[in-house]
Amino acid sequence: MKSQQEADIMELTQMTREIIQQFRTLSAIPHPSGREAGLAHALAEIFQSMGGTVQTDALWNLRCDFPATAGLEQAPCVCIQGHLDMVCATAPGSHYHPDQDGIVCRTEDGWLKSDGRSSLGADNLLAGSAALWLLRQRFRHGPIRLLFTTREERALDGAKALDPRWLDGVHYLINTDGFQENRIIVGSAGGCYQIWTRTMETAPDPRPAYRVALSGFPGGHSGSDIGKGRINPLRLLAALLAETDADIAALTGGSAMNAIPSEAAAVVVPKDLDRFRKALDRVPQLGGAVALTPLAEPVAVWTPVDRQSALDFLLTLPNGVLAWLPEWPKVPACSANLGKVEWKPGVLTCHLFLRGAPQEALDRTARGCHLIADRCGFALSQEVGYPPWDGVADNPLARRISALWAKRNGTPMEITPVHEGLEPSRLIPKHPDICAVIIGTTILDAHSTHERASLEAIPHFVHLLKDTLEEIALHG
Amino acid sequence: MKSQQEADIMELTQMTREIIQQFRTLSAIPHPSGREAGLAHALAEIFQSMGGTVQTDALWNLRCDFPATAGLEQAPCVCIQGHLDMVCATAPGSHYHPDQDGIVCRTEDGWLKSDGRSSLGADNLLAGSAALWLLRQRFRHGPIRLLFTTREERALDGAKALDPRWLDGVHYLINTDGFQENRIIVGSAGGCYQIWTRTMETAPDPRPAYRVALSGFPGGHSGSDIGKGRINPLRLLAALLAETDADIAALTGGSAMNAIPSEAAAVVVPKDLDRFRKALDRVPQLGGAVALTPLAEPVAVWTPVDRQSALDFLLTLPNGVLAWLPEWPKVPACSANLGKVEWKPGVLTCHLFLRGAPQEALDRTARGCHLIADRCGFALSQEVGYPPWDGVADNPLARRISALWAKRNGTPMEITPVHEGLEPSRLIPKHPDICAVIIGTTILDAHSTHERASLEAIPHFVHLLKDTLEEIALHG
Repeated sequence: MKSQQEADIMELTQMTREIIQQFRTLSAIPHPSGREAGLAHALAEIFQSMGGTVQTDALWNLRCDFPATAGLEQAPCVCIQGHLDMVCATAPGSHYHPDQDGIVCRTEDGWLKSDGRSSLGADNLLAGSAALWLLRQRFRHGPIRLLFTTREERALDGAKALDPRWLDGVHYLINTDGFQENRIIVGSAGGCYQIWTRTMETAPDPRPAYRVALSGFPGGHSGSDIGKGRINPLRLLAALLAETDADIAALTGGSAMNAIPSEAAAVVVPKDLDRFRKALDRVPQLGGAVALTPLAEPVAVWTPVDRQSALDFLLTLPNGVLAWLPEWPKVPACSANLGKVEWKPGVLTCHLFLRGAPQEALDRTARGCHLIADRCGFALSQEVGYPPWDGVADNPLARRISALWAKRNGTPMEITPVHEGLEPSRLIPKHPDICAVIIGTTILDAHSTHERASLEAIPHFVHLLKDTLEEIALHG
Repeated sequence: MKSQQEADIMELTQMTREIIQQFRTLSAIPHPSGREAGLAHALAEIFQSMGGTVQTDALWNLRCDFPATAGLEQAPCVCIQGHLDMVCATAPGSHYHPDQDGIVCRTEDGWLKSDGRSSLGADNLLAGSAALWLLRQRFRHGPIRLLFTTREERALDGAKALDPRWLDGVHYLINTDGFQENRIIVGSAGGCYQIWTRTMETAPDPRPAYRVALSGFPGGHSGSDIGKGRINPLRLLAALLAETDADIAALTGGSAMNAIPSEAAAVVVPKDLDRFRKALDRVPQLGGAVALTPLAEPVAVWTPVDRQSALDFLLTLPNGVLAWLPEWPKVPACSANLGKVEWKPGVLTCHLFLRGAPQEALDRTARGCHLIADRCGFALSQEVGYPPWDGVADNPLARRISALWAKRNGTPMEITPVHEGLEPSRLIPKHPDICAVIIGTTILDAHSTHERASLEAIPHFVHLLKDTLEEIALHG
């Protein structure tokens, strides 16, 4: 006779296998941000076949209502919410086309992974597949609304556009975009994306020019990694150029406003080559590599006033964590990331991403950047953002979910706000009375070809979701 | 027969007793910063009676050379360095006059304390008394130079003025101002004190005015406590006034440029009293108290442009830790503290203290403040500072001292730079070849009437100093 534990493992394995099969089928449909129609269509058909009532909108946000188990019709309505789109990172040379090619996935060493050509998109479709599996089972639950948004990875645009009436009647919202099986997120930061440009006068310089390149810095996510004290090589390079009085012909670096840069480069005319080399010698101690290459042709350098203004701007802008949340001293309250600098002859463009909660703190930081830009001759060419989801220190739903987790797994869950942008910040203002939490399966290295999801976490997530839906159905 | 341990304790007790007696005698001579002549004179007499060669300068810096033990004349010269002056904090109502009254001390529960009317001044005279005691004993040492500076607590002014020739011939410098028996300091931050003023136009406002006072915030040292995420109530109050569009007639707070403020107050005319009260309701959650008191008379408030500029300045200035040292991720590299704001009718004065290492990082931060001030109409009325002492990651003397400590006490010492201003930053540039460290006895709550020194740490310090002098005498 099999022991209970062995039977459990068999059951879990079966569940996990079916969920992965569901995920495999769905993620074979290309679904990068802005191209979610195909996936929305496929899901709508599945939901209808399961007896759900389906609705979509112009952005392909998808809503599906499932009736309660008989007798539990009066229980509070729970919205299980995720996003359809994925960031489709591709491997260099993979010839992978995110708009046309589906995800191919495999399991290895306890992880679900892509075939290495693209990211996996377990963020966020794995949790959706798991929820879908759960809704096919018989268990006690009240009315359930599934909500899949689009363009989450594009500044939460689907959630922003969502018709507020789609949340009518919802008591609890469980977002599944949480990345860590034993954590409940109860608040998220607002974001503000500023693009600053400055016209730069240049003058030909006959002296020998060089290209200086900083690389190999750790980089990272401008939200979850900003509190780790990582060096921004764009700032470092600007500081080195300021320190050594080097003339500058070009400055570039970073890849996206919301990523901490891992590299930066400049075309320069050093005032004193030995001193310049000596300053660069410090770079390896700071965790990166540096290369200095002579250029064949002379260059045109920024005029002294413009050079000084640009360096002043880059070095006076806020950088890194500006304040920590008083109630959660390890979570940033406000931060700034100079994510990308571009140079096109005559114009320097700086991409800055600010995060903050509450809204006033974010606004203050944004305003400070305006003041500094104003002083340094930079003009705003774009400013867009989204609000914070201000977490409450004591979220009653989070407490209940943590207790359910503890009953199965022995330890309580971590309950915390995070310094990232998440969809409740767009959804909850439409219905401020909804009590929301974010949970999720464990996913590492999202938005990269190394994205992988823990197989072990999948049944944990399903059990937690099931326990929560039952608990709410029975106890309100 | 007594056990060795009992004999050791007897010896330690005897040593500690004699050192405290020495400290008691010396600290009975008033010695606040700038008034060190009496103490310098007394010490000079003692040193001469011990066979030392004494020299003083115009600021009463004191130098004394002691010859080596016979046969060790060729050993490297070690300079044991401390400061004569103390910050003489006094208890309210104590009628204590720092210029006239000596320190009265007592021992209690393993601590050396003052009588409660003043600070103790164990910072730094206790280590000096201990060194004096040691030099009266017979042990093997090379040439020793004692160096006592003045006005350390006034921006290291004595050390700054010290004749560089006073360090001629010194191989190792052991500063004794370290505050923690099991720590070796190998680097310190530079400082930059800026005072900014702005002329403020005001206009009479007939509406009801209020005084709002924030108090009870933790405050702390702008160096050692700046990395602890403590809220600056001056910034918080400015943010609340900005958020609520309150008109402002006065704004004050803080006590010194180098202390994190624990309180702030403003005279205001709230635009909407209910909204204003609601904003103030957040203060207790942030760790402070708030009081709102109606004023009997109407006030004159800042004109809108001046109000906006002042708030922009206060809220855009850098605040708290701006960067961490790459090699020591828990030690700030650069920080800013808005320590004090004063209001005299028509003029707002802001005292800002910046700390940083290396010098370039400090200079950049200072320059950023100039840019922001310039944009907001503030004028610089004072800017003074001192350089950092850039620690090397691998200090050979620190390694040797830590090994000696470990031999006696079992564990190695912590070796770290600190985010404070210390005298090697003024002394080492005079002789960059000198290898310096800072050690010390354990002292808590310096600069306050609660200052106290661990009795147990006194013999530990003496043994460490003796072991180090012997080690250098024998091994170079």
